[in-house]
Amino acid sequence: MSSDPIILYDIPSKAPGCAWSPNTWKVRYAFNYKGLAYKTVWIEYPDIADLCKKIGAEPTMIRQNGEPYYSLPVIEDPKTGAVISDSARIAEYLDATYPDTPKVVPEGTHVLQKTFMAAYDNATGPLISYIMPAIAKILRPKSEEYFVRTREASFKKKLTDMWPTGEEHEKAWKEVEAGFGKVDRWLNEPMNAGKPFVMGDVVSFADFMIGGELIWCRCGFGEESDLWKDMMKWHGGRWAKLIDSLKKYEGPLEDMAD
Amino acid sequence: MSSDPIILYDIPSKAPGCAWSPNTWKVRYAFNYKGLAYKTVWIEYPDIADLCKKIGAEPTMIRQNGEPYYSLPVIEDPKTGAVISDSARIAEYLDATYPDTPKVVPEGTHVLQKTFMAAYDNATGPLISYIMPAIAKILRPKSEEYFVRTREASFKKKLTDMWPTGEEHEKAWKEVEAGFGKVDRWLNEPMNAGKPFVMGDVVSFADFMIGGELIWCRCGFGEESDLWKDMMKWHGGRWAKLIDSLKKYEGPLEDMAD
Repeated sequence: MSSDPIILYDIPSKAPGCAWSPNTWKVRYAFNYKGLAYKTVWIEYPDIADLCKKIGAEPTMIRQNGEPYYSLPVIEDPKTGAVISDSARIAEYLDATYPDTPKVVPEGTHVLQKTFMAAYDNATGPLISYIMPAIAKILRPKSEEYFVRTREASFKKKLTDMWPTGEEHEKAWKEVEAGFGKVDRWLNEPMNAGKPFVMGDVVSFADFMIGGELIWCRCGFGEESDLWKDMMKWHGGRWAKLIDSLKKYEGPLEDMAD
Repeated sequence: MSSDPIILYDIPSKAPGCAWSPNTWKVRYAFNYKGLAYKTVWIEYPDIADLCKKIGAEPTMIRQNGEPYYSLPVIEDPKTGAVISDSARIAEYLDATYPDTPKVVPEGTHVLQKTFMAAYDNATGPLISYIMPAIAKILRPKSEEYFVRTREASFKKKLTDMWPTGEEHEKAWKEVEAGFGKVDRWLNEPMNAGKPFVMGDVVSFADFMIGGELIWCRCGFGEESDLWKDMMKWHGGRWAKLIDSLKKYEGPLEDMAD
């Protein structure tokens, strides 16, 4: 039984302080919340599938053409030998394997946490026109080329053409704000009003999910951008307060230099 | 302090055993699950607003034109004098006021239960073309006239024209099935697999919500209809099993005769 830290495979970026993926951030938050020792191994986008096959990590999806789709986060736990893919599965693994640490997915909420994500994604869908081109730009060249090529193939348009400009921007950005407004109203459910997190006073996977998405925006748009400054003002500063409450679980980010 | 039963205001229908509204069913399930004494007062659709104003029930929505929108369920509790609207608020009221009864919304899940509903509604959206015309037909004449008139105004089409036929039906019904398939996959989250309810082994508001929607289909389509028979076979019989597990919380339905 090894006492080496758990390995978190994550995607690097060019932006300082920016682990690239909102999905790996969920796991990063979970590690720091639980106080578990981990170390990051940075993997460029085109190397993900080979890594997963090599270490025996399951694909997180099967494409319509039947091909497996591999994605990060993946963790490798030297203590148990386990290799786990998918942020929700990783959270559940950590909850089960380290029962003395605070739970990320409280008992009985596995389905509800999953559907929160579906509802959130639906509400904030209009963000995609902004976040896709923004987040592509902060990848390192090897990942950027791969990400842009594969995403342009699935969206059937150039990522740079997705970004709304002029009047279209006015309208689209208001739609993004309205989407977050919907999430804000959910969080303001009477029995949850004034409480910081989705489950009230206790942080959980759903908050890490929102936090990861907010970090994506902060990193993609840049802290000094008008877009990010807007977001930090929306809904009485809810998103600013949330990302601030989660700050202590971001943890120190290890060097991304090769 | 009165020991009279709590009054549940509900909408009657022409179909035997069919309280009309999926939203009042959530409360009916909750009463029976908690073992609280209640009695139904049946209210026709066009009388809802006047009733609510008379007994001081809050509107459940403010329309875009600023007008209040009143809806059932509403309960009136002679023990406390409270009058509560909205099924989620009623569930929370009952949880708080009768703390010795099993909780319908477990601690910390208020937001998650709400977003489950949003995600469910989204997934099963295509059902609307079938359920709207079906459910209108089982209202009594006074409610039917009102319901059809107001819904046709908001959908801007005749309810009877919504029902898909021929090839359109083949396609649309498959979309409904796919929508329920999405919910089925959520319920099959690894940590919930094989468990009967959204929160695992314990029933909660989310199950009552699905149950209410299923009763709407059972009542609107009829138990002998092909549509209902299809639904009962979908996804390994998940929906048949669910509505069956909830059967004991349907309770006896009081006479709807005027």
